[in-house]
Amino acid sequence: MVSEAPRFAFTIDATDGKARTGRIAMRRGEIRTPAFMPVGTAATVKAMKPESVRATGADIILGNTYHLMLRPGAERVARLGGLHRFMNWSRPILTDSGGYQVMSLSDLRKLTEQGVEFRSHLDGSLQQFTPESVMRIERNLGADVIMQFDHVVPGQSPHDLAREAMERSVRWLERCRSAFARLQQEDTLAPTPEQALFPIVQGGIHADLRRASASAIQGVDDWVGYGIGGLSVGETKPDMYAMLDVVNEVLPRNRPRYLMGVGFPEDLVEGVARGVDVFDCVAPTRMGRTGAFFTTTGRRSIKNAAWRLDQSPLDPSCTCVACTRFSKGYIRHLFVAEEILGLRLLSLHNVHFLVALMREARDAVLAGTFAGWSRDWLARYHSRSTVS
Amino acid sequence: MVSEAPRFAFTIDATDGKARTGRIAMRRGEIRTPAFMPVGTAATVKAMKPESVRATGADIILGNTYHLMLRPGAERVARLGGLHRFMNWSRPILTDSGGYQVMSLSDLRKLTEQGVEFRSHLDGSLQQFTPESVMRIERNLGADVIMQFDHVVPGQSPHDLAREAMERSVRWLERCRSAFARLQQEDTLAPTPEQALFPIVQGGIHADLRRASASAIQGVDDWVGYGIGGLSVGETKPDMYAMLDVVNEVLPRNRPRYLMGVGFPEDLVEGVARGVDVFDCVAPTRMGRTGAFFTTTGRRSIKNAAWRLDQSPLDPSCTCVACTRFSKGYIRHLFVAEEILGLRLLSLHNVHFLVALMREARDAVLAGTFAGWSRDWLARYHSRSTVS
Repeated sequence: MVSEAPRFAFTIDATDGKARTGRIAMRRGEIRTPAFMPVGTAATVKAMKPESVRATGADIILGNTYHLMLRPGAERVARLGGLHRFMNWSRPILTDSGGYQVMSLSDLRKLTEQGVEFRSHLDGSLQQFTPESVMRIERNLGADVIMQFDHVVPGQSPHDLAREAMERSVRWLERCRSAFARLQQEDTLAPTPEQALFPIVQGGIHADLRRASASAIQGVDDWVGYGIGGLSVGETKPDMYAMLDVVNEVLPRNRPRYLMGVGFPEDLVEGVARGVDVFDCVAPTRMGRTGAFFTTTGRRSIKNAAWRLDQSPLDPSCTCVACTRFSKGYIRHLFVAEEILGLRLLSLHNVHFLVALMREARDAVLAGTFAGWSRDWLARYHSRSTVS
Repeated sequence: MVSEAPRFAFTIDATDGKARTGRIAMRRGEIRTPAFMPVGTAATVKAMKPESVRATGADIILGNTYHLMLRPGAERVARLGGLHRFMNWSRPILTDSGGYQVMSLSDLRKLTEQGVEFRSHLDGSLQQFTPESVMRIERNLGADVIMQFDHVVPGQSPHDLAREAMERSVRWLERCRSAFARLQQEDTLAPTPEQALFPIVQGGIHADLRRASASAIQGVDDWVGYGIGGLSVGETKPDMYAMLDVVNEVLPRNRPRYLMGVGFPEDLVEGVARGVDVFDCVAPTRMGRTGAFFTTTGRRSIKNAAWRLDQSPLDPSCTCVACTRFSKGYIRHLFVAEEILGLRLLSLHNVHFLVALMREARDAVLAGTFAGWSRDWLARYHSRSTVS
């Protein structure tokens, strides 16, 4: 794919059932897998400074191409030195391609084989995404791992629609590949000269389509990693888990699998059990806005009046800044008073929780105790899983 | 005043003209003067963690009694261990008395010699402030320095109204003193057993009233420190400076003078020149919300389109986190995108700027170069002082 050997090496250190633990070595740093990627939508993980993100243990963060391309604009980011320099995060970054947001956020979408024409939700301006233009945008942003531009349809789409989107995504993958290769040769001044391009497995909740997608993608190239898209978008959990089983049977074992847009703690544990290596989700930061936070015994809401005088931390076993230095009573006060610090502490805790959860999962796989660990963890998490 | 010698000692290390530099030693820490106190209104300096506040160099922060008494409530704060423990700031804290906010924020105020009856701006509930109740509230909050409850009138009030408020404030000071002494004897379980009570000099923009106030207050007791209130509330800067000159002639030299609610960088420099030792102001954190920030050549707005591609820091000589790690282009993007991190970085920079300004002032007084330093600093600050 490129003239030089890419600095991208995935090593599996141990397996336990279908679960794996390992490392993805990249030029800007190493990602320990299974890994949770905090989402830095508009070049910031909501309310958190980069060093605070790093302090949670995160090895990599995600940037949203759709948002960044609209504001501040990919060329502007490139002229400011690329996304890493722009937001002062020197470790690996992965950008999604905008395929999901363009179908879910924008107005007046017109999709053709060429690409997607749409209006920005910010200012209504007319825009277009094509496989070629998205590769150009992601090159300007300069992430270390970039996702193909794909055709995304609702999670519960019927077979024929899911098939059309899946097959188009494969054709767009071929175009992404060509554009990507051309840019690597021509655009030598890009912030990140060597990027890794991941394809995205689609197919909705149809096992045959998922298998076809995973196979066809491998027919296009021997990719260094694989995205799994179109899940956690309205389908049932059993359906999601079933599709993971199907896909991970077909994907090569020695390549990282990245389950896009997932998820909550239980989804991460179930995903690891089925062979997923990387996750991302806006939930931890988005939940902070409504006062929701994770604990080992389920989700809670900081608004609970019972905590007015509570001196204990959000979660007794958590080692994050919010839990080691502040009480629920204080954080509740901040949240009720609509103080930014409240939001910050909740988001920071939630991100830390998921990153730490993956660290526990890695340890369990390494120790060969993943089955028992995950069973116990899920049982405890679901024991009082009530947002109250 | 108290049976034990209070842990409150003010030492002047050097003077230069009317400017002084020194230290206030208290049990929870030392305050280097002149000092700027960041304001932690509702038990949080807006958006900042306590360690970030400390990282700016701040030795002491201010809490607003009015806000805290309404939410979360002084008794609740006491039951959670007091303000220091509640918000995880272990150094000195000063609380104002609510005298200002109750006159400017609340609804349906009824003022009598007894105190002020008012409705909470939060939920409309009927509340009352008296000298005695405020002393109780401030004791529950547990700040190291507490301000008397005073009668506040608009800054440009005519002589007779300013006089009535000034004289009432002296009578209320006597009641504060009695209640304070009684509480120190009776309420031995308070978060901060030994608090220092400061009176507040009033008198509007009337020199005779200011002198009378400063004298009368000293007749009530030999206070360990003095607040100067009722300035920077609509009067002109020349009037404010003139009142400072008047007041600081009458107040004892060997006691710290705290100019309440002031201010902008130029006000701090002019205040130090006239013998002020301590300042507080919400401006640095409040300005962040509108994108305004301080530089050595005046105030600026981050919204300036010229900075879209600017890689330089907010202020080239500033050593805060925002200036050492992020560019104006990035911070502008954050602000325009209404990202919390943008607000955080602007606030943090502004607080740091004022705290660092006072450090420079201390150094100049120590070196005997204050007059020249302040003249140059003001000239440079006013050279391009335009919010654009």
